[in-house]
Amino acid sequence: MNNTDKSKIKRAPKRGHYDEATIFEVLDTGQICHVGIIHNGYPVVIPTIYGRSGNKLYIHGASVSRLLVQLEKGIDLSLSVAHVDGLVLARSAFHHSMNYRSVVVFGRAELVEDLKKNEALKIISDHLIPGRWEEVRKPNDKELKATKVLEISIDEASAKIRTGGPIDDAEDYELDIWAGVIPLRRQVQDPIDDEKLKTGLKVPKSVWDYVELNQ
Amino acid sequence: MNNTDKSKIKRAPKRGHYDEATIFEVLDTGQICHVGIIHNGYPVVIPTIYGRSGNKLYIHGASVSRLLVQLEKGIDLSLSVAHVDGLVLARSAFHHSMNYRSVVVFGRAELVEDLKKNEALKIISDHLIPGRWEEVRKPNDKELKATKVLEISIDEASAKIRTGGPIDDAEDYELDIWAGVIPLRRQVQDPIDDEKLKTGLKVPKSVWDYVELNQ
Repeated sequence: MNNTDKSKIKRAPKRGHYDEATIFEVLDTGQICHVGIIHNGYPVVIPTIYGRSGNKLYIHGASVSRLLVQLEKGIDLSLSVAHVDGLVLARSAFHHSMNYRSVVVFGRAELVEDLKKNEALKIISDHLIPGRWEEVRKPNDKELKATKVLEISIDEASAKIRTGGPIDDAEDYELDIWAGVIPLRRQVQDPIDDEKLKTGLKVPKSVWDYVELNQ
Repeated sequence: MNNTDKSKIKRAPKRGHYDEATIFEVLDTGQICHVGIIHNGYPVVIPTIYGRSGNKLYIHGASVSRLLVQLEKGIDLSLSVAHVDGLVLARSAFHHSMNYRSVVVFGRAELVEDLKKNEALKIISDHLIPGRWEEVRKPNDKELKATKVLEISIDEASAKIRTGGPIDDAEDYELDIWAGVIPLRRQVQDPIDDEKLKTGLKVPKSVWDYVELNQ
């Protein structure tokens, strides 16, 4: 990754990572990203779903979406994906922390042309739940027209990761204060049938695979 | 909430909420926010922890933090908090969605003066785990000096919420395609003692309360 001052981790530099493998893993395990742009001179941050293929990220939305209409002009964007893995409870208030994995990306977006739109939408779908795309009715022309997909080149990115227990000041270890970690994770629960589900239809493989992998 | 064009929900307006109760509830149940600013002319989005009291949000960091040094100048910021509550799996690719609760805030930050710093840090601490602040060693002068706390006035904010099952096109209900929701939630796991925990110390009430409330 080519990292300039823009994306270099200044605070707690030991937590910084610049290799693609680490950055991609954080991106690939996230569900939503927060995209920031400059609009009418002020910053706007919007959460949205995404997918990744190689060094490109894909986001989509309604063709008339303000965010997308701005972004397709090729303006600068920043986006962030963050996972919270635990609360780190130290003996001192000052050394309280979180275990987390986050990535900040800088790049620009461009419109995905009509012929490649389906492919890009499949990347987003596979990101959220692998295998689902194959099971469902694909977008028709009207739906594709109503949808805009943007491809974001990852120009620069950095990951920041904290793991492990609290680190207190030497003298605080003698205090009668409990310290430790409360682990947090995303829990996937059992699927719920749609109320209008056609009789006899069972939860498909893609859904069970996803639930079992994450439960 | 005074909402201008900046924060009005344009897409799926039925999902938009502008009352403080709804906005505050989404903010109060989040763990990290994503703050967006303009820095050297480009947008930067950074994840950080926060707390809320009334119409103010608090964020903190090292005194030398780039983000905070910019923000204390009173520049415009946008921040977003988002919860993913479920994957909404429709019969058509087009109608796939997520259940989510998100808030986008527009405001400006100002530096919290030294005398009120402890109070603001307690707000952030209580946001993450109520009651912990009372159990730990409070910040000393050196630690307070190394910490900067910013107060963000919520000038404008909007919430966007989706709940419920998939909504398909009428003719698609006859397809032999399963549809439903995969619920997602944040799972809090049992606390893990620090390796260097002083003998005889038990997990305190604040931690068990938090775990039991969220398990």
